Amino acid sequence: MANFKGHALPGSFFLLFGLWWSVKYPLRYFNEKVNKKSHRNHCYQRLDVIEGAAKIIFALIGMLAEQFVPDGPHLYLYSGEERSWVKLMNWQHTTMYLFYGLSGVVDVLTYSPLKLPLGLDRLMLSVAVFVEGFLFYYHVLHRPMLDMHIHSLLLIAVFGGAFSILLEVFHRDNIVLELFRASLTILQGTWFWQVGFVLFPPRGGPAWDEDDHDNIMFVTMCFFWHYAAAVLIMIANYALTYWYVSRQCFDEIGKYFHLHFTDGELMHKET
Amino acid sequence: MANFKGHALPGSFFLLFGLWWSVKYPLRYFNEKVNKKSHRNHCYQRLDVIEGAAKIIFALIGMLAEQFVPDGPHLYLYSGEERSWVKLMNWQHTTMYLFYGLSGVVDVLTYSPLKLPLGLDRLMLSVAVFVEGFLFYYHVLHRPMLDMHIHSLLLIAVFGGAFSILLEVFHRDNIVLELFRASLTILQGTWFWQVGFVLFPPRGGPAWDEDDHDNIMFVTMCFFWHYAAAVLIMIANYALTYWYVSRQCFDEIGKYFHLHFTDGELMHKET
Amino acid sequence: MANFKGHALPGSFFLLFGLWWSVKYPLRYFNEKVNKKSHRNHCYQRLDVIEGAAKIIFALIGMLAEQFVPDGPHLYLYSGEERSWVKLMNWQHTTMYLFYGLSGVVDVLTYSPLKLPLGLDRLMLSVAVFVEGFLFYYHVLHRPMLDMHIHSLLLIAVFGGAFSILLEVFHRDNIVLELFRASLTILQGTWFWQVGFVLFPPRGGPAWDEDDHDNIMFVTMCFFWHYAAAVLIMIANYALTYWYVSRQCFDEIGKYFHLHFTDGELMHKET
Amino acid sequence: MANFKGHALPGSFFLLFGLWWSVKYPLRYFNEKVNKKSHRNHCYQRLDVIEGAAKIIFALIGMLAEQFVPDGPHLYLYSGEERSWVKLMNWQHTTMYLFYGLSGVVDVLTYSPLKLPLGLDRLMLSVAVFVEGFLFYYHVLHRPMLDMHIHSLLLIAVFGGAFSILLEVFHRDNIVLELFRASLTILQGTWFWQVGFVLFPPRGGPAWDEDDHDNIMFVTMCFFWHYAAAVLIMIANYALTYWYVSRQCFDEIGKYFHLHFTDGELMHKET
Repeated sequence: MANFKGHALPGSFFLLFGLWWSVKYPLRYFNEKVNKKSHRNHCYQRLDVIEGAAKIIFALIGMLAEQFVPDGPHLYLYSGEERSWVKLMNWQHTTMYLFYGLSGVVDVLTYSPLKLPLGLDRLMLSVAVFVEGFLFYYHVLHRPMLDMHIHSLLLIAVFGGAFSILLEVFHRDNIVLELFRASLTILQGTWFWQVGFVLFPPRGGPAWDEDDHDNIMFVTMCFFWHYAAAVLIMIANYALTYWYVSRQCFDEIGKYFHLHFTDGELMHKET
Repeated sequence: MANFKGHALPGSFFLLFGLWWSVKYPLRYFNEKVNKKSHRNHCYQRLDVIEGAAKIIFALIGMLAEQFVPDGPHLYLYSGEERSWVKLMNWQHTTMYLFYGLSGVVDVLTYSPLKLPLGLDRLMLSVAVFVEGFLFYYHVLHRPMLDMHIHSLLLIAVFGGAFSILLEVFHRDNIVLELFRASLTILQGTWFWQVGFVLFPPRGGPAWDEDDHDNIMFVTMCFFWHYAAAVLIMIANYALTYWYVSRQCFDEIGKYFHLHFTDGELMHKET
Repeated sequence: MANFKGHALPGSFFLLFGLWWSVKYPLRYFNEKVNKKSHRNHCYQRLDVIEGAAKIIFALIGMLAEQFVPDGPHLYLYSGEERSWVKLMNWQHTTMYLFYGLSGVVDVLTYSPLKLPLGLDRLMLSVAVFVEGFLFYYHVLHRPMLDMHIHSLLLIAVFGGAFSILLEVFHRDNIVLELFRASLTILQGTWFWQVGFVLFPPRGGPAWDEDDHDNIMFVTMCFFWHYAAAVLIMIANYALTYWYVSRQCFDEIGKYFHLHFTDGELMHKET
Repeated sequence: MANFKGHALPGSFFLLFGLWWSVKYPLRYFNEKVNKKSHRNHCYQRLDVIEGAAKIIFALIGMLAEQFVPDGPHLYLYSGEERSWVKLMNWQHTTMYLFYGLSGVVDVLTYSPLKLPLGLDRLMLSVAVFVEGFLFYYHVLHRPMLDMHIHSLLLIAVFGGAFSILLEVFHRDNIVLELFRASLTILQGTWFWQVGFVLFPPRGGPAWDEDDHDNIMFVTMCFFWHYAAAVLIMIANYALTYWYVSRQCFDEIGKYFHLHFTDGELMHKET
């Protein structure tokens, strides 16, 4: 959907996943430090399945929205009368969502009885991001300069993310790569919103001059400001998680002492 | 051969190899899980030699077909009379097949008394795919837009595959990379067929308009649908293999119990 | 600042860091060989924090200089009256410094109580260098040929450096990568000065002919001479450090013998 | 030197090194298999120093030839009278040789008392190859189509080689990478000769039509035939080395038996 909502929808999906990951991975990192790979591992597997299911649902919502909005193709691909393709733009977006859906399916199958080999889930996610990138790349050729540029900046985040996720196939559970993935996903999310605001001003203000070189220079810079903001959000979420986990630890130590001192004796347990 | 058969032939070769790999690698993966690297290893080495031989045979068929079709060069490279090269297109295809043949030779030599170092077979396969990619890249410059685009999409599968196989030099027997290779090979196979259908409609229907931007948009999308289909085929073959192996396991357990219960005694063996 | 000082300032920053690294890393390498990972480790952590602080300070100086030079934007981004962006060039340079500042912040946080996971500092530095590269890339499009070429050569050093630092995320404390980073940083430093001299001759001599192909050929070559010089500086600093460390060792051995022989006895200690 | 000799000289250097490596690395590989990392290691270090020295000598020859051929620059870089650069082409070639010389210096220093960290030698060789690649890349812009194409094919071998050598920094003594390097070096060598023959026919025959698309198609193909030939040479040298080493083994076993049987007794020694 070449309008504001068509950019806000995927933007929100990416933002949601990015923010969630920016909390989930630090949390797991701290828990592992404290508990040294205990039963929690199982709990994170269940989370991965839920994430997979969420991806499938989001992808379905996206595909249905692209197909059945009033000016959508309604599942018609070729119009025999006019001898022409029907609403290919929407079909391309549908394809993009399809691959994120497939990635969700592989996530779920990884922890199903089929037990797909670990790493396939990351590979499929990487493929989905690459597909998004290639679709965008061919998508924006022959468009006005600003439109092309604003989308091609997105490609930096997309291909950067795709390569980073590809590395996760070989370096699974590497906290650095996972945080990088989260930051690039947040960047994609906010940038989709930004693209919507620039190309389809929702309040109907005057459109940007698409051939002004200054606009292009500003947009380039703005993209990296978004990333700087994403980095700051990541640091803030990391710090909050740290504070939450360490307070919890103190609480447990507190309870422990309270319990044993009121009993009038002191026990040493190995944890 | 710039006609339908010239695309169907390599397409079938790739499809055959891709489908075979999509069964072979899950099978080995499950066997290793059950048997923990036993004598079966030897059996997979023999399979590799047979694969190498198949590559050589396929390459020979391809080379002979390119040279000796009625409008082929019949091994003439330069025509002294006309002072010009003879049927360079066919010669380029011959070159492509030649490198797959060389890859087959290296496969066979790896398990011959010469014992080429492990990894060279993967490297040579990767080189063969790279050569195919470079030949295509220079091949399609200065062609009509649709022709160029439909071939350049192939390059995504080709170079993606070449890099993935290159990684196998360092991560040999990595099931994720092997399945990825299988999926990209299936994609190449089906896409060669698709190219044949689009550029040389076998039933002689009207040719596609080569400069219609909509056709290009559709073809881009169609390429990724092929990959989605390849992924689904991979999952189906994986599941079938899983079902086959686990049924076999149950059968063996069944036989075992049958044998010992009819004997009237119960034995515990460690497996 | 599109003038000589605007190139000399970042050039000096890069040169300072490059030269410092070309001494620091050989020093650590020799110390580790002698002491086999002792308490010195702690000392190098403190150095990393100081480096981080230096980065933040340099970045602040750079940002303030770009904003508050007489012809700078003075923090105005958009001029409502003229309906146009204000001094975007300076804003882009500010953005570049901002990311180096962020990299410094992550360096400091890595050794703060928050304990960011090791590797994030390298990743953030790599991102900062990538951002510099992308900003330059979009920066110099549509400029005169020589200007474009002289900046695009810089991109070789920038992207080369960014990839090399990215590798350090996975190969931390790899002396080869660290020395490579140092050499590319020196190269960036001297090249910024060179760009300043070519595009804005400080003594006001005649400007270079920006469309002479020979100038472009010379500049290409000159860039690699800078790197050859950087390599020679690296080797010299390495040799000096080697000489300094080994003299220190002999001194200590000398003291040891002096001490024990004057005592009239000979002791054997395991080191 | 833009003439036949200017291409034959570097071609011979590359060919010499490539052929030497295609014998040296299989030899080391077989020796290691037999002797399991014995004193021979020391012998291969000495070979590396000799190789470094050979690189320095070859580089000096190349540099002197480029500077002091009759129509060379004779170390003049800028002509004040004509206000123009002198023979930049020769200077660029000199730069190319300079970096191979530097690589030789680093090779020698690695085994000198300075003991540069292992891996720097490979990195410097990789840098030398990258520099060659970049010089060629900027070198051939704005040339006739065939000239450009024939040189840009060389870039495949150059950048492929540079990346492969870069991998050797992390996977040192990996026989697969070393053989790949050897094969690409042979390819560079023969291709330099081929370029000389095509662009400057030594027997003075008619020059090739530089804008005939068929010539370009043939040249592309011919490049890969060169590589196929290089692969066959590699296999032949590998087989010869294998035959030589295994005959030597049998000889030793023969001597051993001869010695002990004439003594009239049979001894079993563990080797």
